[in-house]
Amino acid sequence: MNGAVEPARSATPQEHLDAVSRWLAKRRAVEALLPRSSESGPHGVHPTLQGEALAEVRARLDALHPADVAFILEGLPLEDRLVVWGLVRSDRDGEILLEVSDAVRDTLLADMDSAEMVAAAQSLDADEIADLAPDLPQEVVQDIIEAQDDEERAQLQSALSYPEGSVGALMDFETVSIREDVTCEVALRYLRRFEALPPQTDAAFVTDRQGHLKGALPLNRLLVSDLEVPVASLIEREVISFSPDAQASEAATAFERYDLVCAPVVSSDGRLIARLTVDSVLTYVRERQEAQALGSVGLREEEDLFSSVWTSAKNRGPWLALNLCTAFVASRVVGAFEGSIEKLAALAALMPIVAGIGGNSGNQTVALLVRALALEKVSAATARRLLAKEAGIGLLNGLLWGSVLGAVAWLLYDNAALGGVMALAMVLNLLVAALAGLLIPLSLDRFGRDPAVGSSVFLTFVTDSMGFFIFLGLATALLV
Amino acid sequence: MNGAVEPARSATPQEHLDAVSRWLAKRRAVEALLPRSSESGPHGVHPTLQGEALAEVRARLDALHPADVAFILEGLPLEDRLVVWGLVRSDRDGEILLEVSDAVRDTLLADMDSAEMVAAAQSLDADEIADLAPDLPQEVVQDIIEAQDDEERAQLQSALSYPEGSVGALMDFETVSIREDVTCEVALRYLRRFEALPPQTDAAFVTDRQGHLKGALPLNRLLVSDLEVPVASLIEREVISFSPDAQASEAATAFERYDLVCAPVVSSDGRLIARLTVDSVLTYVRERQEAQALGSVGLREEEDLFSSVWTSAKNRGPWLALNLCTAFVASRVVGAFEGSIEKLAALAALMPIVAGIGGNSGNQTVALLVRALALEKVSAATARRLLAKEAGIGLLNGLLWGSVLGAVAWLLYDNAALGGVMALAMVLNLLVAALAGLLIPLSLDRFGRDPAVGSSVFLTFVTDSMGFFIFLGLATALLV
Repeated sequence: MNGAVEPARSATPQEHLDAVSRWLAKRRAVEALLPRSSESGPHGVHPTLQGEALAEVRARLDALHPADVAFILEGLPLEDRLVVWGLVRSDRDGEILLEVSDAVRDTLLADMDSAEMVAAAQSLDADEIADLAPDLPQEVVQDIIEAQDDEERAQLQSALSYPEGSVGALMDFETVSIREDVTCEVALRYLRRFEALPPQTDAAFVTDRQGHLKGALPLNRLLVSDLEVPVASLIEREVISFSPDAQASEAATAFERYDLVCAPVVSSDGRLIARLTVDSVLTYVRERQEAQALGSVGLREEEDLFSSVWTSAKNRGPWLALNLCTAFVASRVVGAFEGSIEKLAALAALMPIVAGIGGNSGNQTVALLVRALALEKVSAATARRLLAKEAGIGLLNGLLWGSVLGAVAWLLYDNAALGGVMALAMVLNLLVAALAGLLIPLSLDRFGRDPAVGSSVFLTFVTDSMGFFIFLGLATALLV
Repeated sequence: MNGAVEPARSATPQEHLDAVSRWLAKRRAVEALLPRSSESGPHGVHPTLQGEALAEVRARLDALHPADVAFILEGLPLEDRLVVWGLVRSDRDGEILLEVSDAVRDTLLADMDSAEMVAAAQSLDADEIADLAPDLPQEVVQDIIEAQDDEERAQLQSALSYPEGSVGALMDFETVSIREDVTCEVALRYLRRFEALPPQTDAAFVTDRQGHLKGALPLNRLLVSDLEVPVASLIEREVISFSPDAQASEAATAFERYDLVCAPVVSSDGRLIARLTVDSVLTYVRERQEAQALGSVGLREEEDLFSSVWTSAKNRGPWLALNLCTAFVASRVVGAFEGSIEKLAALAALMPIVAGIGGNSGNQTVALLVRALALEKVSAATARRLLAKEAGIGLLNGLLWGSVLGAVAWLLYDNAALGGVMALAMVLNLLVAALAGLLIPLSLDRFGRDPAVGSSVFLTFVTDSMGFFIFLGLATALLV
């Protein structure tokens, strides 16, 4: 980030949003009183409104951290959002576009022409432009690449070449590197040529003449050592580094495990090419968490809170369609036993319990396994052991709660055999749930899909269909 | 963290786990061949096994970062885990206990006596001891407090006094502070009195004589400025600081938003008392994410992968019991319409579709609202707007998918009225789902509960019961 503006300590982002909203409401009220005129000033603001209040809002926006401006833009309905976006200084467009959510970014970009987009990119580093690029029109990206100098262009093309979810997509190029055959005094003199070291720099990387990574010089050691000490004596040789092709999730685990602030990214031949910083990792962890939470209910991305009903319905429709299909199959399972249900309608009342409890139990297994998979704790031996354990838990819980529910069904319908069928069906469906709760996440993981996202819909499909089949099947065989 | 040992670059934690597992398997094989003897050496290892291989495993463990040792311990069944725990150098016990999961920590502590626990705490800082304290016996905590010197004891008591989820529970006391009326040369000379600055230190905090926070001196500016420059000219005055009573989740948002590495924690009268670092925040974010993922299926905490069936069943039982209760209520709703179902068994086959699709749609609303609540984006005005929008989406999707399913039901059962009831019930239950999907998370949030954890079970209860009631009620009124 380039933002030199400090976030104000005095007000929270929410308070800034409230203040801007009040101004917008006043503006709307005044405009409603005035006749529509074609003399409106820049950004569609009526000229009579461009007095002190407008200047105040501009000053407020100028003083805010880009993340806080992004918060305000995300918190406003589309029309208001574009008014505020028009008030933002254009040299800050780039850093603010980086901070807003994807859905809101789309609405802001739709309000900009190509020249404005290219200008916004001028204030950004190569890795930041690469973050924006997927949302920009292809020809704008081309214009931006052509507007760069040679070094920047090479970095930009490198950054653009790594897929989302890789270390390459998160890295930046603000590395500080020194040679090891100097004293601390020389190293410090070299560092003083920078106006300020890049943020999140806790170490200078040590390289040889060919750029191969040799170690890291932690700044908190450099800072406290005597000037005549050779740098070589302070260097850490065992440095955790990443390949740009590595999974970002693995890097995030390493950052958390080893409390890293900044780590070198090296090419396959050991050359220092970039760095990965903890702020990118923290953002990645949060965004991944959100993507999983939304993905587990079939949403591709966060919705703009103020998007239209139509846009939102399109975002949510495919998931509902998929679930309708699985529900339809489960419904046909029940349909096959309609004859039994006509004779004993109690079956219809009891069958959702058997299906539902299987889903609950299976989803517990899924949640534990997803976490173990994320931490790479599941070897083949562990999986076998887990299968025995989960089956055991299913059996135990099935016997316990199956007996309770079986007894309740017996009392309720004065039918001991029905109670017995209920209990047996619960045991069997909990065993199915244990098996499905293990195999579904393991299979998704094996096929390179995120088990946190897709497991639940498959699991519920299995436990519903099998729950109905086991209960109604047993009832048909034993009771009707 | 105190660990001076660097993680090895050459092998992944999984590879270390595999190597240790191989040694354990060999050890078991040899022991099985030998007669049981009472002459076993320390830690129950048979004397004939204490040769080269044992020394190798010890050396491997000694060289590993505590987080990697924790990974190995978590990846081993209880018996093996305790053998390896016995091989860990006792002065590293504390830092490793900090890294393992709660469930695994319990198994390790169960293997230690009070004196060992007190000794393990000796190597830890006050904030780290406070993290362990909830898992230690009360009298051990008392012994540890008494073993501290005065300053440490005050810090420990301060750290122990803040509840989980507060900034106070995450902060540490390794602050570096300087006065502002000195030159950079003096500041550097002062810093050189430290052997090394604490990790994650990207700024020295500037305080007055009474300890009031006046600003921060970023080390990356100090490092590159001339020695005779006064510190005052480099200070950032607008520093983001936290109260120890603040919510950790708010601090995490600020760290992500403003890319912080280290921030001061100040008392209500503005005195610097501690600091919050990005490594604690990253750990907090990950642990919270896990707690929410597990909590949403009713698990209080991560299970030890190798815990007994009995322990696990106890962990999962209460959730199943709660879900059985809600499923039982939904079952009674169906039971009230058994007369209709006897006459038209198709109702039993179709009713799970109506209920299920309501649950799917409502959970989408919940997921979006939970995220908006976490970012404090939901004002009263926004909530009203969202209600209209979600109801609109429910209506649109209900009309669309209700028509499709209604048509299918019509064709399947050759009953146009049944198709109409199906379509109408879908529309109505999606409207119920929209309302419940908004009100349930908002209510949980209002009452100080985490909406990410409890919303789904309530929502499914509402959409199941109401889905059955609406569909069967309409069918009874219009068809039967």
